[in-house]
Amino acid sequence: MNDQTTPHLEGLVCPIPLRHDEKIVMGHGSGGRMSHELIGRLFQEPFDNPALRAANDAGLVSVDGARLAISTDSHVVWPLFFPGGDIGRLAVCGTVNDLAMMGATPLYLTAGFILEEGLDVSLLAQVVLSMQAAAAEAGVSIVAGDTKVVQRGKADGLYINTAGVGVLRHNGTIAGDQARPGDAVILSGPMGDHGIAVLSARGELGFEADVVSDVAPLNHLVAAMMAAGELHVLRDPTRGGVATTLNEIARQSAVAVVLDERAIPVRPAVASACEMLGFDPLYVANEGKLLAIVAAEAAPAVLAAMRATRYGEEAVIIGRVQAAPQGRVLMRTSIGSTRVVDMLAGEMLPRIC
Amino acid sequence: MNDQTTPHLEGLVCPIPLRHDEKIVMGHGSGGRMSHELIGRLFQEPFDNPALRAANDAGLVSVDGARLAISTDSHVVWPLFFPGGDIGRLAVCGTVNDLAMMGATPLYLTAGFILEEGLDVSLLAQVVLSMQAAAAEAGVSIVAGDTKVVQRGKADGLYINTAGVGVLRHNGTIAGDQARPGDAVILSGPMGDHGIAVLSARGELGFEADVVSDVAPLNHLVAAMMAAGELHVLRDPTRGGVATTLNEIARQSAVAVVLDERAIPVRPAVASACEMLGFDPLYVANEGKLLAIVAAEAAPAVLAAMRATRYGEEAVIIGRVQAAPQGRVLMRTSIGSTRVVDMLAGEMLPRIC
Repeated sequence: MNDQTTPHLEGLVCPIPLRHDEKIVMGHGSGGRMSHELIGRLFQEPFDNPALRAANDAGLVSVDGARLAISTDSHVVWPLFFPGGDIGRLAVCGTVNDLAMMGATPLYLTAGFILEEGLDVSLLAQVVLSMQAAAAEAGVSIVAGDTKVVQRGKADGLYINTAGVGVLRHNGTIAGDQARPGDAVILSGPMGDHGIAVLSARGELGFEADVVSDVAPLNHLVAAMMAAGELHVLRDPTRGGVATTLNEIARQSAVAVVLDERAIPVRPAVASACEMLGFDPLYVANEGKLLAIVAAEAAPAVLAAMRATRYGEEAVIIGRVQAAPQGRVLMRTSIGSTRVVDMLAGEMLPRIC
Repeated sequence: MNDQTTPHLEGLVCPIPLRHDEKIVMGHGSGGRMSHELIGRLFQEPFDNPALRAANDAGLVSVDGARLAISTDSHVVWPLFFPGGDIGRLAVCGTVNDLAMMGATPLYLTAGFILEEGLDVSLLAQVVLSMQAAAAEAGVSIVAGDTKVVQRGKADGLYINTAGVGVLRHNGTIAGDQARPGDAVILSGPMGDHGIAVLSARGELGFEADVVSDVAPLNHLVAAMMAAGELHVLRDPTRGGVATTLNEIARQSAVAVVLDERAIPVRPAVASACEMLGFDPLYVANEGKLLAIVAAEAAPAVLAAMRATRYGEEAVIIGRVQAAPQGRVLMRTSIGSTRVVDMLAGEMLPRIC
C-alpha cells in the first residue's frame, strides 16, 4: 500500500502485537484455536463492547425497550451444492441458528451476495429459491440485500453473508457462561453429518458416502425446549465440531465437561468415513445440531420436548458438567479410561460453511 | 452440480424466466440498470415482503414497539487502501449511511470478513483499526462478527460485509417515494471524489489525481438536517452516482427531477479526470455525499443546518422536482437546452465499493 493513502489513519496506534511478515493461513478459518487466537488478537480490543465481549453466538442489545440478538455469518462453502443442502440453505440456517442459540426468536435477515463474473444465473436462481424455502421454514423475512460482482478468479462462484435480528422474550439468561456443576449436556442428534456430506460432494472420500448434511433451522426446536424447562447454555457445534464448542463453554463457564463416549451418537457411515480419513467426528462440523446444557432435574422434560420435534428426534444426554478441572473437556472412554478432549488445533476441513 | 445433491429443493418451482446459459457479468454489480434488472428478476419475488418491496436503502420493521431500520452491504473495493480511505472505513460508513438515509439513528453493526490465504495480518490489523475509528466517529458499536478464510486465488485480499441496525425515532416518512412536485433537490457537496480517488489509486489515470475519497459517516449530518426541517427523501449516491440515484427516486415517486447543470458541484481535479477518461461525473460513485429532497419552503433552513456540519459544508440546491415527465431526470444545461439524464446502463467502474 502507498504511504500517500493512509493519512486518514494518522494518530491511530496499533494495540496489536504483530509478528513480522505474518500471513493468514487456512487454519485461521477453522473455527478452532487458530481462529480464536486471531480474533482475540486483532478484533477484541479495537471492537470491544459488552455485546461482543460476551462471546456468544449473537450479540445482545436493547433498543427502545426491545431486547435484540444480532448475528452475522459469511458463507464460503465449497462445493455450492452438496447432499442435503446448498450455500443458500446454509446461509439462512447458519444465522437463524446463531440467533436461536441465544434463546431469541429469529425475525429478520439480510443477505449480501458476492458473485464471481461468469457464474450461471440459473445456479444463482436455484440458491435464491433454496434461501426462500429455508427462510419460510424458519419463519424469517429477508428485509435487506446487496449484490456485488468481482472479476473471474476473484471469488469461487458465490459467497453469501447473512446477518440476522431476533427478539428475546424470555427472562432467563442463556449464554456460554451459564453452565453449572451437575448440569446435563444434551446433543440434539448424531454428529458430523454436514462435514462428511460436503467432503463426499468434493469427491475427497474416494467413494460416495451415504451421508446427507443436517443443515436445518433449529429455532422451532429451541422454542419447544424453552417451553419445557430452563436452559443454561445453547450452542450449535459448527466449525470445530462438538469438541471445540464444548471447550468454549467449559472456558466461559469455568467448569469441566465430562463426556460419555458410548452415549455420543455418530451414524455408521460418518464413523467409517472418519476412520478412513483419520478424522475424529468430535471435530467435524454440524449445521443442524445443537448442544444444550440444562439443570439435571430439567433434562428429562427438555429431552422429551426435543424428541417430539423434527430436528430433535435423536437427542440424547452425552455428558455432565462438573466443577473441575476448570475449562477442560474430558471423555470417559468405552473401556473406562479418561482422556482430555481439546479444541481443534489447526485446520481440518476448509470451507465447510 | 450433481442431481443427487438437490432433493432438498424438490417441489420448488422456479418463478424466474431465465435465458439459456446466461452468465453474471461485471455490469450486474454496477448499481445501474443491469443491477436493478438482476435484482428484480432473481430476488424480488422469492424474497418478497413489505420491507424489501419498498426498495429503500434499508428495510423498516417493528420489533416489540421499537421501529428498526436494517441494512447490509458487502464491500469488494480494489485496491484495499486509497487516498482518503480503505475497505474498513468504507464498510462501516456504507452501512451507517444506508441506515441514516431512512432517518434512522445507526446503533449496531455486524462485520463479516472473507480473508484470502496469504493476506498480511498487519494489513488486516490496519483495516480493523480503520473500522474502529469510523465506528467511533459514527457512534456505532460492532456487536457481532465472523471470519472465514478461502484459498489463495479465491478472493482478492479481503472482502468485508457489514450489516446494521438503526432505530427510527421521528414520525415523518423519509423514503424514495416521498418526492413531491415543487420540492428542492439538495446535494451535500461535490460529486465523484470517491470514484476518481479509487481509480487514481489503481494507477488507471496515468497520472496522480489530487483527489481524496469522500468516504464518511453521514449520520450526524442527517441528524442536523432532521432537526432543521421536514425531509422527504434522503439517499446516498454511491454506485451509479447522482444520476442513477435520482432516476430511482423519480421512478419511485412518479415525478420528474430537473437539474440545473451550473449548480452541480464538481471539483476541478475530478472534472478533468472524468473528461480525460470519457466519464460523466454524474455517474461516478460517492461515499460521503447525500441527496436530499425537501419542500421548497424547508430548503433554506435545511441547507443552513447542513453547511454548519462537517460533511455538509459545500451543500447546494441542484434542482427541483416537477410533476412530469414522470420517472424522468432532466438536465437544464448551461447553454439553456434540456437533456434526459438516464440511469447508468452497464458497467462503469468495477469494484468501487
